[in-house]
Amino acid sequence: MRSMRIGLLTAGGDCPGLNAVIRGVVLKGTRLHDHEFMGVRGGWRGLVEDDIELLTRHQIRGLSKQGGTILGTSRVGPYGEGNGGAARVKETMARHGLDALVAIGGDGTLTVARMLHEEGVPVVGVPKTIDNDLAATDVTFGFDTAVQIATEAIDRLRTTGDSHQRCMVVEVMGRHAGWIALHAGIAGGAHAILVPEVPLRWEQVADWAQQTADRGRAPLVVVAEGFTPEGGEEVTTGGVDGFGRPLLGGIGVQAAANLQELTGIETRCTTLGHLQRGGSPSAYDRVLATRFGTAALDAVHEHDYGQMVALRGTEVVRVPLAEATMQTKAVPREQWEEAAILFG
Amino acid sequence: MRSMRIGLLTAGGDCPGLNAVIRGVVLKGTRLHDHEFMGVRGGWRGLVEDDIELLTRHQIRGLSKQGGTILGTSRVGPYGEGNGGAARVKETMARHGLDALVAIGGDGTLTVARMLHEEGVPVVGVPKTIDNDLAATDVTFGFDTAVQIATEAIDRLRTTGDSHQRCMVVEVMGRHAGWIALHAGIAGGAHAILVPEVPLRWEQVADWAQQTADRGRAPLVVVAEGFTPEGGEEVTTGGVDGFGRPLLGGIGVQAAANLQELTGIETRCTTLGHLQRGGSPSAYDRVLATRFGTAALDAVHEHDYGQMVALRGTEVVRVPLAEATMQTKAVPREQWEEAAILFG
Amino acid sequence: MRSMRIGLLTAGGDCPGLNAVIRGVVLKGTRLHDHEFMGVRGGWRGLVEDDIELLTRHQIRGLSKQGGTILGTSRVGPYGEGNGGAARVKETMARHGLDALVAIGGDGTLTVARMLHEEGVPVVGVPKTIDNDLAATDVTFGFDTAVQIATEAIDRLRTTGDSHQRCMVVEVMGRHAGWIALHAGIAGGAHAILVPEVPLRWEQVADWAQQTADRGRAPLVVVAEGFTPEGGEEVTTGGVDGFGRPLLGGIGVQAAANLQELTGIETRCTTLGHLQRGGSPSAYDRVLATRFGTAALDAVHEHDYGQMVALRGTEVVRVPLAEATMQTKAVPREQWEEAAILFG
Amino acid sequence: MRSMRIGLLTAGGDCPGLNAVIRGVVLKGTRLHDHEFMGVRGGWRGLVEDDIELLTRHQIRGLSKQGGTILGTSRVGPYGEGNGGAARVKETMARHGLDALVAIGGDGTLTVARMLHEEGVPVVGVPKTIDNDLAATDVTFGFDTAVQIATEAIDRLRTTGDSHQRCMVVEVMGRHAGWIALHAGIAGGAHAILVPEVPLRWEQVADWAQQTADRGRAPLVVVAEGFTPEGGEEVTTGGVDGFGRPLLGGIGVQAAANLQELTGIETRCTTLGHLQRGGSPSAYDRVLATRFGTAALDAVHEHDYGQMVALRGTEVVRVPLAEATMQTKAVPREQWEEAAILFG
Repeated sequence: MRSMRIGLLTAGGDCPGLNAVIRGVVLKGTRLHDHEFMGVRGGWRGLVEDDIELLTRHQIRGLSKQGGTILGTSRVGPYGEGNGGAARVKETMARHGLDALVAIGGDGTLTVARMLHEEGVPVVGVPKTIDNDLAATDVTFGFDTAVQIATEAIDRLRTTGDSHQRCMVVEVMGRHAGWIALHAGIAGGAHAILVPEVPLRWEQVADWAQQTADRGRAPLVVVAEGFTPEGGEEVTTGGVDGFGRPLLGGIGVQAAANLQELTGIETRCTTLGHLQRGGSPSAYDRVLATRFGTAALDAVHEHDYGQMVALRGTEVVRVPLAEATMQTKAVPREQWEEAAILFG
Repeated sequence: MRSMRIGLLTAGGDCPGLNAVIRGVVLKGTRLHDHEFMGVRGGWRGLVEDDIELLTRHQIRGLSKQGGTILGTSRVGPYGEGNGGAARVKETMARHGLDALVAIGGDGTLTVARMLHEEGVPVVGVPKTIDNDLAATDVTFGFDTAVQIATEAIDRLRTTGDSHQRCMVVEVMGRHAGWIALHAGIAGGAHAILVPEVPLRWEQVADWAQQTADRGRAPLVVVAEGFTPEGGEEVTTGGVDGFGRPLLGGIGVQAAANLQELTGIETRCTTLGHLQRGGSPSAYDRVLATRFGTAALDAVHEHDYGQMVALRGTEVVRVPLAEATMQTKAVPREQWEEAAILFG
Repeated sequence: MRSMRIGLLTAGGDCPGLNAVIRGVVLKGTRLHDHEFMGVRGGWRGLVEDDIELLTRHQIRGLSKQGGTILGTSRVGPYGEGNGGAARVKETMARHGLDALVAIGGDGTLTVARMLHEEGVPVVGVPKTIDNDLAATDVTFGFDTAVQIATEAIDRLRTTGDSHQRCMVVEVMGRHAGWIALHAGIAGGAHAILVPEVPLRWEQVADWAQQTADRGRAPLVVVAEGFTPEGGEEVTTGGVDGFGRPLLGGIGVQAAANLQELTGIETRCTTLGHLQRGGSPSAYDRVLATRFGTAALDAVHEHDYGQMVALRGTEVVRVPLAEATMQTKAVPREQWEEAAILFG
Repeated sequence: MRSMRIGLLTAGGDCPGLNAVIRGVVLKGTRLHDHEFMGVRGGWRGLVEDDIELLTRHQIRGLSKQGGTILGTSRVGPYGEGNGGAARVKETMARHGLDALVAIGGDGTLTVARMLHEEGVPVVGVPKTIDNDLAATDVTFGFDTAVQIATEAIDRLRTTGDSHQRCMVVEVMGRHAGWIALHAGIAGGAHAILVPEVPLRWEQVADWAQQTADRGRAPLVVVAEGFTPEGGEEVTTGGVDGFGRPLLGGIGVQAAANLQELTGIETRCTTLGHLQRGGSPSAYDRVLATRFGTAALDAVHEHDYGQMVALRGTEVVRVPLAEATMQTKAVPREQWEEAAILFG
């Protein structure tokens, strides 16, 4: 089989494990098949603006443990206004002699990959969502690292809460799905876990906090950024920041304000934010990302385009992109209820 | 449904996550069903010698992040000479009014649980093997922590190897299955991974080390304790230790001796040993162990005895103990070969 | 020498190492001298409200690695309105037969200790400030842990910044002194470090950020919470939070807003907050805290009251409380300038 | 002042912080003074064999957090047989136009630097000893990282010991001085700390272990590799390894064998070995190493040769090389005795 020239890109928010995927693709491709690789800079932007460079084996050395992505990323898409769509992508690929693409990214990226594939671009997808909310795969890389970091933060905050008899609120990532909150909350022994999938009244959360305090412990509440309280009168925070954006829509700060008002317990909020997505991936994420990378190379090598790699049980399989992007994976109510037994 | 009195025991080698299982069982049982719990001390020994105490909710506070097991463990079994078998177990259970047992342990413990169940003891099993070598479950808790620790060790050793241009050998756990070696090796970017399932000649390993050195890098070799070299003349280490045991049968030291002799590259071995099984569990293991604990309580609560909890994909299910202990899960040759593409 | 009964209290904000001090005092006191100890709950509050319990050797088991303080803390002081002053303290001490106090706390706590001593209360101080801003001692425990946590956060944030070509701002503790910012900034290789001791114009900071971006790197700026920008027109953030407090007076968010406006580089802020003061202390802090604890016990044992323990070079010495609280230790301008060579 | 060309080398065993020193020297030298730098490969070997390359600012990017040394290291010295002595060093320096050297290394390296300086080579030393046993400086970088790693290992091993009621022995670095054992032992709450400076009978150590066990706890013993037991009949381990070296002269294994024999408590040994010297330096070590680097550059810039940089209290000072290498810093007996109060 003739040697191929393959383009790699990472798009959307960064995530621990991106570099391990890149390494997996390139190592297997160069060692087993003598394929050649090019790095597309800044996600789809590199194809739109023709920002593409050779990706040598030397560049991927020691990459599995490195956070971020050496290819850079952006939220630019080929179907954006004036970005030229599939035609531009094909043009750029032709200019560099690219036979195929490996696109590593989230829901948006994979949807673009599916659309490009429908227009004839030979592309294989690798799913990336730190929130773990993609139905087509059991787990995505980056999630384990984020949960680990959030759990370590909870462990730390708990000692401060106990010393000061304060209620501690931790806001974690999870805009549409509460997986990080659920797992970090269980691992850290939280007294309440608030997820987007399960709206709750602040009064209910305050009850759990109060029960905890009544047992002589400092309440610890984990809230996903996408949680929405149910009904009741909100204690809002108001204001706009320097960018004119509404200030402290931050649900963590809202939770703290409401819990303090309802329970009278001094309450503090910590927002983990970018800490959850940077830095060296956990061993679990490095292994999963490496397996995704080598499996994506296999798909490209077999010209099995329009597919995405995915984890099912302990196996890495292929799933059609069309199917893969149809459905997000929410925390099932019964799984949250199982965790809720431990609340309060 | 009437409230039950349930005995818990942990047997065999310790493993990060044991305490999280205990906490899960007790929290769900006390909160949802008003069951009562007793801690059986030192594994089966506590039933043989009647060393059993009340296990209060207070004792399980903050336990999910704590390494080891608060119940203690031992390798004593009820079927050991003079230990009284099922009759003694039933007798001790009756004396304390125990309606059922939750037995947390490895292959040996679960086999004992199965035998006791066949003799009429109401028992539910929770699988524990840091080596992850149980076929009946996709993953066991403790494994992720061990892989993480081994990976961090590899990250550290690599910088020393590179500075001194030495070959570094790391011996990790894995007597019959090489899962820890495989995952830590992939995560750490090892240049060779030696597992019990795949015998190799030292010459082959030395080739990989030499290829790595030829590219200007310091070779890093991960070897599972149960690896056996194939054919060839071994450079053995000989001797007996202060306990009269054969000295440094340690395969890591043997690997280092052989690699140094065959390649001429200065080689050092580090044996991680107990570092892999102690200390605070990773978030992944805390979540899995907690889920195993609450699922085991459910089985007991429904009087569904003779079962073991297990992970299948993302679900926790029940598996008959009889089936569960029949088969160990080896690293499939093709999975090792997939990793081997990255060697050298 | 007759055995004494000694009260211990921890006051002010919590700090990694408090428990190690407690353990050091009690272990040396019980083992070497047969002294008895009582835990004063919630700082000075315990003396004001008579909330005091026996502190057994069993309670201090395994305490050196535990964050927070098992004695609890508060900001209540004996000289607060209606709190009874030295008279009340002596009364409570007499009621429990306390011969002396060990007061572990910051500037405020030590000032109270000095005043009480001047009124005849036998007290020895142990300095605690996570900000490391006490002139009387070279280092205080908790500082090393805070710097380590902030450094790890910087390491993580850097990969995200590089992947997205964003400027990352990290706000760390340091209300009056910039030691945490200085050390974490040096350790993390920050491109600008903003401390309370050195007011700067946003334009200067933006210049450094721009220089960094011009070299193709993502700027990383560390700002101490007490930094005040110099002159110029501020881009403020406005608003009040749910407690009616001015919102996002957070200097980190202000820095991000200003830097983004001045450079046009997308900028994000992470505020570490309580993450820096919770959790297990670093080995350095455990050793220092243990040494402070045993040295404080020696002072009490020798009835050398009105003293505080302190580190000078590698020695733990005693300093009169009167002298100890007179002066804060600011970052010297030349030390900041030394670091500033590496900016941009 | 005219720009200089300066050679850097790292010699002896690797140590966390070496790269941070290199970065500090080069960043200050290029930014403030426009000096040029060359990397001498493999310690003194690079001067003996003329293995020297330009060291660009690009190469030192992100180096403060990286373990090992990018310059490589070796134990080759210019005064070794046939290595040409000072004459060869001067020759190589002249060939590359080197105006001065910065030599980063331990006792041996600094002694060579002193001898070369006496023969007219313009050299400045930076002390490096992970064991912290240099009298001329309060602390050396690398030590803090080693203590932190050993302390984390102790934390992990303790849970295993407690679960199995075993005695755990940890062997740490420290051939001539027991600083790592002392600090990690205090930080980890060890029940006995064995250092080279204080010979003890195994019976004494066994007594401590037995006392600990009698209180229901698992004894944890830290032993420095250079500890020598006093008198009594040793339980030796015998044998030779694959290199023909006496096997398990390892004092840790000897300690375990003797303690098990004397107490009857099952005992296990873990030898940390290279884990202590590899990997990313702690924040403390990064700051100290950076300060040593910039201070060494200052000395070179001022042509103040024959000096070594050193930490005194919180200041970085210069010490004549002649004086610096005269004396090792042992653990003072009274400091060990202070720690010993906590034993048993």
